[in-house]
Amino acid sequence: MLHIEFVTDLGAHVTVDVESADKLLDVQRQYGRLGWTSGNVPTGGYQFPLDNEQDFDWSLIGARKWTNPEGEEMVMHRGLAYRRRELEAVDSRKMKLPAAVKYSRGARGTDPEHVREKADGEFEYVTLAIFRGGKRQDRYAVPGGRAAPAPQQAARPAPSRPQPVAARAAPVAVEEEETPF
Amino acid sequence: MLHIEFVTDLGAHVTVDVESADKLLDVQRQYGRLGWTSGNVPTGGYQFPLDNEQDFDWSLIGARKWTNPEGEEMVMHRGLAYRRRELEAVDSRKMKLPAAVKYSRGARGTDPEHVREKADGEFEYVTLAIFRGGKRQDRYAVPGGRAAPAPQQAARPAPSRPQPVAARAAPVAVEEEETPF
Amino acid sequence: MLHIEFVTDLGAHVTVDVESADKLLDVQRQYGRLGWTSGNVPTGGYQFPLDNEQDFDWSLIGARKWTNPEGEEMVMHRGLAYRRRELEAVDSRKMKLPAAVKYSRGARGTDPEHVREKADGEFEYVTLAIFRGGKRQDRYAVPGGRAAPAPQQAARPAPSRPQPVAARAAPVAVEEEETPF
Amino acid sequence: MLHIEFVTDLGAHVTVDVESADKLLDVQRQYGRLGWTSGNVPTGGYQFPLDNEQDFDWSLIGARKWTNPEGEEMVMHRGLAYRRRELEAVDSRKMKLPAAVKYSRGARGTDPEHVREKADGEFEYVTLAIFRGGKRQDRYAVPGGRAAPAPQQAARPAPSRPQPVAARAAPVAVEEEETPF
Amino acid sequence: MLHIEFVTDLGAHVTVDVESADKLLDVQRQYGRLGWTSGNVPTGGYQFPLDNEQDFDWSLIGARKWTNPEGEEMVMHRGLAYRRRELEAVDSRKMKLPAAVKYSRGARGTDPEHVREKADGEFEYVTLAIFRGGKRQDRYAVPGGRAAPAPQQAARPAPSRPQPVAARAAPVAVEEEETPF
Repeated sequence: MLHIEFVTDLGAHVTVDVESADKLLDVQRQYGRLGWTSGNVPTGGYQFPLDNEQDFDWSLIGARKWTNPEGEEMVMHRGLAYRRRELEAVDSRKMKLPAAVKYSRGARGTDPEHVREKADGEFEYVTLAIFRGGKRQDRYAVPGGRAAPAPQQAARPAPSRPQPVAARAAPVAVEEEETPF
Repeated sequence: MLHIEFVTDLGAHVTVDVESADKLLDVQRQYGRLGWTSGNVPTGGYQFPLDNEQDFDWSLIGARKWTNPEGEEMVMHRGLAYRRRELEAVDSRKMKLPAAVKYSRGARGTDPEHVREKADGEFEYVTLAIFRGGKRQDRYAVPGGRAAPAPQQAARPAPSRPQPVAARAAPVAVEEEETPF
Repeated sequence: MLHIEFVTDLGAHVTVDVESADKLLDVQRQYGRLGWTSGNVPTGGYQFPLDNEQDFDWSLIGARKWTNPEGEEMVMHRGLAYRRRELEAVDSRKMKLPAAVKYSRGARGTDPEHVREKADGEFEYVTLAIFRGGKRQDRYAVPGGRAAPAPQQAARPAPSRPQPVAARAAPVAVEEEETPF
Repeated sequence: MLHIEFVTDLGAHVTVDVESADKLLDVQRQYGRLGWTSGNVPTGGYQFPLDNEQDFDWSLIGARKWTNPEGEEMVMHRGLAYRRRELEAVDSRKMKLPAAVKYSRGARGTDPEHVREKADGEFEYVTLAIFRGGKRQDRYAVPGGRAAPAPQQAARPAPSRPQPVAARAAPVAVEEEETPF
Repeated sequence: MLHIEFVTDLGAHVTVDVESADKLLDVQRQYGRLGWTSGNVPTGGYQFPLDNEQDFDWSLIGARKWTNPEGEEMVMHRGLAYRRRELEAVDSRKMKLPAAVKYSRGARGTDPEHVREKADGEFEYVTLAIFRGGKRQDRYAVPGGRAAPAPQQAARPAPSRPQPVAARAAPVAVEEEETPF
């Protein structure tokens, strides 16, 4: 038996029993769809292989894709919106970095020091996830091979698996306030 | 089986077993009525849709509505009183914000830095919850459709569900000291 | 089933299963008599109604009453002694505060910033509990209606309930060092 | 049923079920002999009665006695060595303190501020335990009345109780680096 | 029954039940191979005997050996790469230190203060583990007596023990960015 600790969409601390280790990612997906998260975002953001970016299952970390009115791809995580940015490969004498995709937001006054990263000038930002290099992990993908699951989400038939609580809170329409990045 | 962690009204750390996920909010309501809380107030306060404000069930977060002698609507949470304020919509070139309702209190000397928000001048405050935008979540409402549950609370018949501890501590009559806001 | 987390008198982290919610305060009393505590002292100290002060059951928070050689009423909590002080009611234009009883000690060099409160001059102190206003909660009282339980404690017959560990450590005789207040 | 949380000698976080409260100290001894600890050292160090010093069972806090090549009595706790020092009684007008025995080490650059205590000059140290005043607690003693258990430890017959992991890591021979005190 | 808390490769907080204490290291190896860790790296790094260095089982702490394209021996732990360095014995009048092997990386801007160690000049680094002195602990070795397990890892036959999740994320190819050391 395993037990996974979540922070629910209401901020409550709830542990869920999991029958066996091979059911763990299913449980993370099930509750992640409700906005529940387990653990903290690692300093510098989650690191995933670049080849997982296209069909990454954001429910695994309690997040969800979302296209804002301006048509930008965003990810909502714990009530904050992160914007998708493509980073070109760097191949200078000083540094060699493969291409990457990063989901980040501008830092807020209440963000602790150790999650802030410096950008140009005085601008600071916070990274949710970075996809770079590595080897694709199929287990991180949206189940069923959907390439772009986010838009279909609203039309997706109700899952047969019981939904613990009715539905995830709709995104509050003011995240832009928090994401000048 | 799920397990939810609470801090009781006496400050004790207690975990309660919950049979299934669809019982979770019931358990949060049951113990929240006693002033038990689970998890911390998110930085910047809980975010809820504006349409949930009128009949929001404050027991979900271990809080309770309360009208002070001056007739102001207050919310009591972990022994501190937060005052209801209506924020008008902002529609300037720099910022667009829908109308909101905010429950906040003046900052106290012992509040940690990351929960303090700046207001005009040197005044700092702390937000418990903000209701803004979004789409109403019925599951956040007081069960039974009561529009204004707080006043009836005293007259409410004893719930058939067993009460773990006799009754929640009556609000100490000096919260005003802490809420110059 | 509930589970309550304690820090034992030896500083160990121990969780105790509790059959049902109505047994919780009993378990807190049982282990609190050994000096076990659950959770942290709230910032600014525990808040209780004034009418609970006379027969407050200090075992509920892992503390115990104690009269020092000078005849002063003290409370011992996690190896530190707090002194009882009566605060008169304040009724000025700036502030209205009912009478209160406070248990506090002088701050120590190792106390974190957020628990220190300023007094006159450079003196800082730390509050364990304040009794003020509110409505008496019978469940906080020493069971059996004893008005002043502390002196009888030594002569109290051995409880029929099994004692988990032999006896609580006797107070080390040097707390005065820590309590210049 | 009780459950005690340990940090193992490998730094892992492991909880052990304990059948009943009267078995708790046995379990602390059993795992403490492997260097497992539960909870943190209290700020200022553990406080024990002076009369417990001679036959104190250091396994209760995951520590172990050890005589260094210079013949000094040391205690090893979480990979750090603490040196035994006898403090004479103080009987001045300003302060009255009974005699004590203290186990402490010099502060390291990575020690957090709140555990550092000032000594003469700029020297800072960290206390593991102080034995002073109080009334002897037999339950803190090495079981079986051994007055000086440490030297015999190597020759001690294998306990009938199963040993969870083979044996505790032998002390790394370089603790002196950390203990200029 | 024991229960060990892990942070999974996805950052989730998961507890795994362990039947008995003698199975604990097996469980740590099983999940450690997936990059799961339990507890934090001790300040200053894990301390192990020098004689354990050659066949140390890095899965015990959720790490894994890895030879980089330059042929250097590295250890990957929670997405960061640490470089192997041999430290010669010191035998001066001021200090006596036996030879050691250290796994460390350069400090990153987001590393908290208390894990940074000063090197020459302004350079700071963070240590994962240091092997020095002490007495070999066989239980820390790769099971089966393999002297240098890392290279064979890819060709290792699938373990008969069920793998909870498919496979550990391949190392992202950009760790060099983080390890100027």
